[in-house]
Amino acid sequence: MKKRGILMVVSGPSGAGKGTICKELLENNKNIKLSVSATTRAPREGEVEGVNYYYKTHDEFKKMIDDGDMFEYAERYGNFYGTPKAAIMKDLEEGIDVLLEIEMIGALNVKRMCPDSVLIFVLPPSLEELKKRLTGRGTETEEQIEKRFSMAYEEIQTMKEYDYFIINEEVEKAASEIEEILSAEKNRVSRYSSDIINKFREEYETC
Amino acid sequence: MKKRGILMVVSGPSGAGKGTICKELLENNKNIKLSVSATTRAPREGEVEGVNYYYKTHDEFKKMIDDGDMFEYAERYGNFYGTPKAAIMKDLEEGIDVLLEIEMIGALNVKRMCPDSVLIFVLPPSLEELKKRLTGRGTETEEQIEKRFSMAYEEIQTMKEYDYFIINEEVEKAASEIEEILSAEKNRVSRYSSDIINKFREEYETC
Repeated sequence: MKKRGILMVVSGPSGAGKGTICKELLENNKNIKLSVSATTRAPREGEVEGVNYYYKTHDEFKKMIDDGDMFEYAERYGNFYGTPKAAIMKDLEEGIDVLLEIEMIGALNVKRMCPDSVLIFVLPPSLEELKKRLTGRGTETEEQIEKRFSMAYEEIQTMKEYDYFIINEEVEKAASEIEEILSAEKNRVSRYSSDIINKFREEYETC
Repeated sequence: MKKRGILMVVSGPSGAGKGTICKELLENNKNIKLSVSATTRAPREGEVEGVNYYYKTHDEFKKMIDDGDMFEYAERYGNFYGTPKAAIMKDLEEGIDVLLEIEMIGALNVKRMCPDSVLIFVLPPSLEELKKRLTGRGTETEEQIEKRFSMAYEEIQTMKEYDYFIINEEVEKAASEIEEILSAEKNRVSRYSSDIINKFREEYETC
């Protein structure tokens, strides 16, 4: 019995460390594929089509939305960013697990369109630690940090909509917790029971 | 934040190997406790009160049922067997994970009374392998084996009511899959999100 892949959606407030966790997870699990987003923004130097993004014109992007080929999309600073459905569905069909790192509204849209997907929310160990990490980046003004910090607190309230949470105290531990979630989901009855029952029925009828 | 323990209920057809898997799991995980059943049958030689069973008179057993202190119970060959609630609830409260190895009707009763419990169904890799295992025991007549085999096939249909399944190809692998389920359940939002959100709220209000 070949198992369909699992679509994992990872979100979390800025500074919780979801990017680092996802990187660690992908390095250790070659069967997990990071989904590539589509965008209307121009490629930056060194970026590669199909690796960093699928680069689309506004018209192409709009057509994909109209054709229902976007799991979710959003506009940021005049450019569109979105998650194309076709490539993900093909990978899942082939048994490849797919990882999506997107923000909350996008995550909930994916769940609505693909109820089998697994939503994971990454949390910092504490707000104090979150502030330290935001400050440690050294790339933002104090005001920007304060704004991100308040937003993070608001975002944490939305974890209720997710299936699982990860408290990111240590990257390796957090990544291995996601591996365990993935493994458990591969043993979930609601996902595979008809396949299994059919397999046993076929064997029973021929024996 | 102290996490409540998780109640795991393991069932599966005769010959699927659930007993061996549970034994392996308990040996490797000292935080998991096997729930001790209550029974009205007399202790056999070497059996110890509170280890093999809690031994009860018929009147005591009936009183426990009437007081609602049984998760589930059944009668077999004139004796009663049941799962006392109090000890399990105390362990869960203290953060200890509890393992229950019971048959299906009992498992569904536990789920009804304790919706947070995790129901796991153990499957043989194939019906052929199941028959081989049943025959290999050498303790039953061919007729008894045939009966167990047909029952096993019927029981497999009921896996739909469970949360997770385990295909028992190899005991170590099966036991570690249960460990991964347990670990994933400890990251489940529906189980702990209010505790987590409260923890962050308290920190936010005092900072």
